[in-house]
Amino acid sequence: MHSVHFTAETTSNGVLEREFTVGELTGVLWSPASGSDRAPLVLLGHGGGTHKKWPGMVGRAHALVTGGGFHVAAIDAPGHGGRPRTAHDEQEIAVMQQAMAAGEPVGPIVVRYNLHLAERAVPEWRATLDALQELPEIGADGPVGYYGLNMGTAIGVPLTATEPRITAAVFGLFWPDPLAETAKQITIPIEFALQWDDEHIPRESGLALFDAFASKEKTLHANAGMHKELPRFEADSAVRFFARHLA
Amino acid sequence: MHSVHFTAETTSNGVLEREFTVGELTGVLWSPASGSDRAPLVLLGHGGGTHKKWPGMVGRAHALVTGGGFHVAAIDAPGHGGRPRTAHDEQEIAVMQQAMAAGEPVGPIVVRYNLHLAERAVPEWRATLDALQELPEIGADGPVGYYGLNMGTAIGVPLTATEPRITAAVFGLFWPDPLAETAKQITIPIEFALQWDDEHIPRESGLALFDAFASKEKTLHANAGMHKELPRFEADSAVRFFARHLA
Repeated sequence: MHSVHFTAETTSNGVLEREFTVGELTGVLWSPASGSDRAPLVLLGHGGGTHKKWPGMVGRAHALVTGGGFHVAAIDAPGHGGRPRTAHDEQEIAVMQQAMAAGEPVGPIVVRYNLHLAERAVPEWRATLDALQELPEIGADGPVGYYGLNMGTAIGVPLTATEPRITAAVFGLFWPDPLAETAKQITIPIEFALQWDDEHIPRESGLALFDAFASKEKTLHANAGMHKELPRFEADSAVRFFARHLA
Repeated sequence: MHSVHFTAETTSNGVLEREFTVGELTGVLWSPASGSDRAPLVLLGHGGGTHKKWPGMVGRAHALVTGGGFHVAAIDAPGHGGRPRTAHDEQEIAVMQQAMAAGEPVGPIVVRYNLHLAERAVPEWRATLDALQELPEIGADGPVGYYGLNMGTAIGVPLTATEPRITAAVFGLFWPDPLAETAKQITIPIEFALQWDDEHIPRESGLALFDAFASKEKTLHANAGMHKELPRFEADSAVRFFARHLA
């Protein structure tokens, strides 16, 4: 088992940001700069084609740290953020780019490729969580949440289904097939975001994935707008969701 | 035109509560006890069978005053809160009670009766708003929101469609037919609540009413649970919605 090795450290706006490695994995841990003994941990999954420190990730992480006092950890997904791509990665990305250039639907390719990436990413997240829980400011028995949309949901749903340490999760913006079968195994509180006018994910598909979760407590937030127009206030809503469930 | 006449006044937890009349209408105005010059006004509509000071109303009003600094006004709907019932009211209530006792669907009766009450309530709300805007702490040019679920939506949708002073609204928990036709005229920002497992309002019906609003900015909050199990945190969400749109 690998431990967390911190490689860089900065502080801004009350948030301590530490880059780290766990074996070959590259990650970042955001924490309250004022210090935090045994605060809950939120795992933050990025979307397809981005990386652990994409601006939207940093914005969500700062909201969680300053608004909820949480630790927030992100790692680069396989083939993302400078991590090496396999021949399979290169091939799927080329197929996706061809479809986009031709104006053809990318959904089936995104679904297939992201679920493949999830098989590689789930054990990486579990190893990262093992290592993070060795840090004294996190600890082995503290509450853990997961927050990821798009590819972050494709990875987060199978991760949450197999990882009992995760006790609350925010998902959204993904297709139900075949993710819904895994969602049926999940019973923890869920907040789920979809875009009412999503040009990639049919409305009925988004609703079907929300419906699939077996959770007794689950909330759907559907906003008018297209796939990439998720309102910023949904990040603040996620902070309050985790504050309700991880505190 | 009638003016506001205050008839009783109490203060608790930082909230000044003043009962008032406008002609024959009975109302209550909640305001910050610390005083508030020209704060926005939220009109709060109650559900069927309750009244202006039902506990859920008081809770929402206090959240809006202490969380948003708003003035909040409620009036008793026709035939509610001690206001006289017509023979038609008595007849419809008897039919509703018979249906409930027999375990028959009450939806069609609730829809029919609430839309009838809305025809009487809309001009009452407009007269109340006229009178409230004469108060120096509210004024004629301040922002106005409307917040009402169940019967509060049956009344609030036609009120909002005909009242340009209302610029943001929270609705929910009602049937689309025939309210959806009126909702298509509404373009202001909307937050809309429905219960995913509502035993009275079919899921598709709730989604259809949300879909009908012509608003460019609209958000659906669907929570797992039955008709009366709307989570309390939705009241806090409404405060933040009005803070975004009335500030």
